[in-house]
Amino acid sequence: MHVLVVNCNTSESMTAEIVAVAELAAAPGTQIVGAQPSWGVSSAEGFYDSFISAAGVLDVLSTWSGPVDAVVLAGFGEHGREGARQLLDVPVVDITEAAAYLASLVSHRFGVVTTMRSAVEAIQQSLDTAGIADRCAGIQAAEIPVLQAHRDPAAAADALQPIAQGLIDSGADGIVLGCAGFAGLDVVLQERLGVPVVDGVAAAVTLCEGLVRLGKTTSKLGPYAPPSADKSRPGWPPARIPAGI
Amino acid sequence: MHVLVVNCNTSESMTAEIVAVAELAAAPGTQIVGAQPSWGVSSAEGFYDSFISAAGVLDVLSTWSGPVDAVVLAGFGEHGREGARQLLDVPVVDITEAAAYLASLVSHRFGVVTTMRSAVEAIQQSLDTAGIADRCAGIQAAEIPVLQAHRDPAAAADALQPIAQGLIDSGADGIVLGCAGFAGLDVVLQERLGVPVVDGVAAAVTLCEGLVRLGKTTSKLGPYAPPSADKSRPGWPPARIPAGI
Amino acid sequence: MHVLVVNCNTSESMTAEIVAVAELAAAPGTQIVGAQPSWGVSSAEGFYDSFISAAGVLDVLSTWSGPVDAVVLAGFGEHGREGARQLLDVPVVDITEAAAYLASLVSHRFGVVTTMRSAVEAIQQSLDTAGIADRCAGIQAAEIPVLQAHRDPAAAADALQPIAQGLIDSGADGIVLGCAGFAGLDVVLQERLGVPVVDGVAAAVTLCEGLVRLGKTTSKLGPYAPPSADKSRPGWPPARIPAGI
Amino acid sequence: MHVLVVNCNTSESMTAEIVAVAELAAAPGTQIVGAQPSWGVSSAEGFYDSFISAAGVLDVLSTWSGPVDAVVLAGFGEHGREGARQLLDVPVVDITEAAAYLASLVSHRFGVVTTMRSAVEAIQQSLDTAGIADRCAGIQAAEIPVLQAHRDPAAAADALQPIAQGLIDSGADGIVLGCAGFAGLDVVLQERLGVPVVDGVAAAVTLCEGLVRLGKTTSKLGPYAPPSADKSRPGWPPARIPAGI
Amino acid sequence: MHVLVVNCNTSESMTAEIVAVAELAAAPGTQIVGAQPSWGVSSAEGFYDSFISAAGVLDVLSTWSGPVDAVVLAGFGEHGREGARQLLDVPVVDITEAAAYLASLVSHRFGVVTTMRSAVEAIQQSLDTAGIADRCAGIQAAEIPVLQAHRDPAAAADALQPIAQGLIDSGADGIVLGCAGFAGLDVVLQERLGVPVVDGVAAAVTLCEGLVRLGKTTSKLGPYAPPSADKSRPGWPPARIPAGI
Amino acid sequence: MHVLVVNCNTSESMTAEIVAVAELAAAPGTQIVGAQPSWGVSSAEGFYDSFISAAGVLDVLSTWSGPVDAVVLAGFGEHGREGARQLLDVPVVDITEAAAYLASLVSHRFGVVTTMRSAVEAIQQSLDTAGIADRCAGIQAAEIPVLQAHRDPAAAADALQPIAQGLIDSGADGIVLGCAGFAGLDVVLQERLGVPVVDGVAAAVTLCEGLVRLGKTTSKLGPYAPPSADKSRPGWPPARIPAGI
Repeated sequence: MHVLVVNCNTSESMTAEIVAVAELAAAPGTQIVGAQPSWGVSSAEGFYDSFISAAGVLDVLSTWSGPVDAVVLAGFGEHGREGARQLLDVPVVDITEAAAYLASLVSHRFGVVTTMRSAVEAIQQSLDTAGIADRCAGIQAAEIPVLQAHRDPAAAADALQPIAQGLIDSGADGIVLGCAGFAGLDVVLQERLGVPVVDGVAAAVTLCEGLVRLGKTTSKLGPYAPPSADKSRPGWPPARIPAGI
Repeated sequence: MHVLVVNCNTSESMTAEIVAVAELAAAPGTQIVGAQPSWGVSSAEGFYDSFISAAGVLDVLSTWSGPVDAVVLAGFGEHGREGARQLLDVPVVDITEAAAYLASLVSHRFGVVTTMRSAVEAIQQSLDTAGIADRCAGIQAAEIPVLQAHRDPAAAADALQPIAQGLIDSGADGIVLGCAGFAGLDVVLQERLGVPVVDGVAAAVTLCEGLVRLGKTTSKLGPYAPPSADKSRPGWPPARIPAGI
Repeated sequence: MHVLVVNCNTSESMTAEIVAVAELAAAPGTQIVGAQPSWGVSSAEGFYDSFISAAGVLDVLSTWSGPVDAVVLAGFGEHGREGARQLLDVPVVDITEAAAYLASLVSHRFGVVTTMRSAVEAIQQSLDTAGIADRCAGIQAAEIPVLQAHRDPAAAADALQPIAQGLIDSGADGIVLGCAGFAGLDVVLQERLGVPVVDGVAAAVTLCEGLVRLGKTTSKLGPYAPPSADKSRPGWPPARIPAGI
Repeated sequence: MHVLVVNCNTSESMTAEIVAVAELAAAPGTQIVGAQPSWGVSSAEGFYDSFISAAGVLDVLSTWSGPVDAVVLAGFGEHGREGARQLLDVPVVDITEAAAYLASLVSHRFGVVTTMRSAVEAIQQSLDTAGIADRCAGIQAAEIPVLQAHRDPAAAADALQPIAQGLIDSGADGIVLGCAGFAGLDVVLQERLGVPVVDGVAAAVTLCEGLVRLGKTTSKLGPYAPPSADKSRPGWPPARIPAGI
Repeated sequence: MHVLVVNCNTSESMTAEIVAVAELAAAPGTQIVGAQPSWGVSSAEGFYDSFISAAGVLDVLSTWSGPVDAVVLAGFGEHGREGARQLLDVPVVDITEAAAYLASLVSHRFGVVTTMRSAVEAIQQSLDTAGIADRCAGIQAAEIPVLQAHRDPAAAADALQPIAQGLIDSGADGIVLGCAGFAGLDVVLQERLGVPVVDGVAAAVTLCEGLVRLGKTTSKLGPYAPPSADKSRPGWPPARIPAGI
Repeated sequence: MHVLVVNCNTSESMTAEIVAVAELAAAPGTQIVGAQPSWGVSSAEGFYDSFISAAGVLDVLSTWSGPVDAVVLAGFGEHGREGARQLLDVPVVDITEAAAYLASLVSHRFGVVTTMRSAVEAIQQSLDTAGIADRCAGIQAAEIPVLQAHRDPAAAADALQPIAQGLIDSGADGIVLGCAGFAGLDVVLQERLGVPVVDGVAAAVTLCEGLVRLGKTTSKLGPYAPPSADKSRPGWPPARIPAGI
């Protein structure tokens, strides 16, 4: 089974890290393939970046030619989810939903710890539109930029811990890592906090595996019907440029 | 990995069927173990049966001695979920939530087809308390008793099809099978209806596998903290009697 | 008129206390009859106990043979309400709903003070499913076990007062006593706090009287239709054992 | 105990009818006193009439000098409720809330049958602000003007029956009579429909009795604090004129 | 274009101030006409005053004979809105909705600063029934009576600033002035706080202008259909008395 | 005052039409400037197109050099709104919100008529995230592609009329035109239907004028803070290509 994990930003090193975490989560026989947009944002923190990122990710997906059985959208709280579902027949799992669903199975109310204040409302909106916001006890930012978290995971864990503890103190009994750049921090934080800590990338990989094994594909009889082929999309997708930070 | 699948009624043949479906869904290396309450209801269709069933299922779980890494609660819309989470450290996955979550990943709004009108409101309540009701487009009953569905799956599929189609016509683009006794009908209905059809038992097995692989256990720092050991529970669990239909 | 007040735990002394409070609330001509499960939990504080208690209470109700015109379910935030309504034609009034409704008539937003943190989420769920949660300003626990409150009411009142005051300070203008074991404390707390304090047992008795006087019985044309008589419920109800703490 | 029942319109004959229904519902020892605004609307059907009626009712209450232990606001879906609660220390029970609460105790979802289409949205708003709208399955009008219903109850019952049946067919299992002018029709409709039918006037009387017996008065520490006495209210209340149709 | 701005209280000097603010907001060619009830409340702070004020305002509107193309209801959080819409064909813009809508266009979540604690819940209800409460981050009172704010705007601004800052600190990124008596303070507070501050009177004037220019009038095919002309409204409107403080 | 109206698709003729409608709505002194993405979709009908369109529109805005005092986003139900608000200091008015707000001032519940079934859920999501969905009575599609509506407005009006009437029959008392391509049809439909019909483009122009006149700019102290300037956005914006259908 091939699971395509699409980083929402253009950082290849972050893609590599996400792929590594996904591989750890994957069952034997699952092959993780990483990708990132060839253009867009080096990191997404807030609405504007999120919309650019969404188009970049849809560009990747609309032109992907390799084998793929399911897709993980590795941008926490980022836009594009429903567009990707229109585009593809295979299951598309957003790490926001994935983390929220798994956290809701092992805790009563989850709190989300994220990078920057600017990302909080986009995450809230993503949980709202996914219909799982009722289980969320709060979203708090540690004011760590995405790429800094990616470069220094130990410092990120230290910064996230008190934020997560604050959420627990005010009613959360589980924690969701609200950034793909936090991937891998769930183990250490879980140990320190004493509650389940869910990383969306890992969660999404297991959900993809489940959906594929059960033979589920994305519904095509509703709003995820394929984009109309009759219309022109001038200049789409944009010409490629080499990505990187 | 051992996944304990607990049928919510006392029918051993239904347990066997559920186990068979669970085994089909399971990954290599996952061992499915079936169980059912030794007392309670031969089938659960509505609130009263559901509460009896909940106690019977908690009885099974409170005295289970075999190896278990995760538990599937195989009663659609039945009570007891949060109590089981208090009782156990391992993940507890209710097929109601499991089906709703997976359906929400491959469709925009799911409809639920269930057995009897009497079960509809209990299912609604279960989706409400799980916090995923926003994604549900409707719940409709085919007026097939649970055990009849279990005995004649072909007839059940025929009865469910028009009900499911009605839900699709009014806005659902995915279907959830709202009874453990429908387990296995997802494939045939999916083919006939042209939308993803999710069976909760199969869905729950894959969610258990994911949670176990990721090292998640049920939170013990909130409402799922273990039941107080200081208090007496007179006559609990009740004395065993041989079950069967 | 006979009002059956069913304690949700097996403590006969607590039943006696509840009956005493109910009698004080009752109109002339109303005869209060007390009962408790013959098995289950000596006190219910949280989901697990609540589900056991629900089955025990349904056992009491399914086998009750005395005259009864209405039933009070005297477990605050406990499960079983909808099952009891299926079982009986006479009105069934849960003290959770009763207190919430009366409090909503004399205050704009009520706060709930309860025993243990472990009970908070079960109460929240009960208010949610009753559809009256919008009027609730918060639920706070005083960390007094049920039976301790029952044994030392003066200490319970002292412990509840600052918790209730905190709720008032944050927007509640009425207080609901969130445990049947607090029955009788409404008067003293009302005096100390200066806002209406509603005890669910007393509230429920008056609601039963009203419903009976108006000739209302539980609807049998929807989800409260009687449990199917066609099915077997093996081992249900369980064999009786002598109850007590 | 004196319960003041305030008709929301100026029709003295309708007040008399409402008082008669209230007396039937009242317990021995409860004395029903009727009143209506001396100015305002001969019947209230929709927002505009409702606001005029609210002021007229507040005028009655602000100048009432007789003994009163509780007040029933006998206008279904009419405004003024929260203002009356500010004005008075004794409990104020709106028939909208009263009917909704009692119906929620004996049915899972209630439907409301009312007079005119123009009243539907005002009723919806009243249920919304009372926080009990989740239990309402729908509000339908029979297109009977209030006063016509008052004059010809048999015809009103005939007109309401199919409307109520339609609500039951679409999911309601209880009916609320959505007009004080329907008072007394609950018995005949209950018999015909086979589900509980709740009349708000009768319901409110029993709730008043319960609140008074339990010693509850309206909270004065929040939004129901007495209207400021420091300010002038020029021309309020307006000069009296003889009312009547 | 004539825009009638109706102050909700009887203070003519406050009307004058509101008119002045409205004129500043008006486009060239818009003529602002001020009015206030001839009876009612000298200021409205809470439910009781609000209902009296609503009737007084409806009295003004029902007897207005001058040219009018749109109406501004200049009472923040006050009742009567839907009644005025029934009464008139021209657009009726409540300053509560007006401020909330404009604030929602330039901020993600707005906070409301108002006069007295007693007004908070009425404002909440007004936002709820307008259907825009989801965008509101909180409502806080500065404990400044309406008329005091009107008389000493500089002191009012000083009192409002920390309250508004508190709302911003807890998540609001825009502020709504929750009293017609604060009209004109938006400029100074906007400068001090660094977020958009919206005054409902000014907002409503621009909305009226837009609606009139686009040829929109109030819908007459639903709950805003004209009040029935067939019924009597005895003593309505009440006899005039001279207003003033 | 310069109001930049950005069509969400690449059709220059549709931009021209939208500009014409905007000019009709504009007050004297307002200069309408039209623009459209240089790449993207020739029409947007559903999630996938909407996300591409969002990026194209943000590209237009991020590089706009002409004078601009406010921006209208002329894509009904399309994404990008919050990103544009981050990017710009001037007010950004989405036609979805604009139409919903104005419709809510002249009707109690509005229905939305749109082009294709594929757009319905995106519109629902846009109303949900704008926080105004409570006022929406339904969204129905006439199955007219955007560009066909643009080319043959008379046929579009004929097709929309029965759809709008259906919404009115089921409870709407106002209609919102759910596509920028319907701009200008509000007058004819309003006449035929007898309820207010609101076109978002015209509505948004008047809201922009109001916000600018009142000196409101987009909040920069919350989620609309400017996108971080520290990060790289490789390949963004994409190289221009000539647009057109």
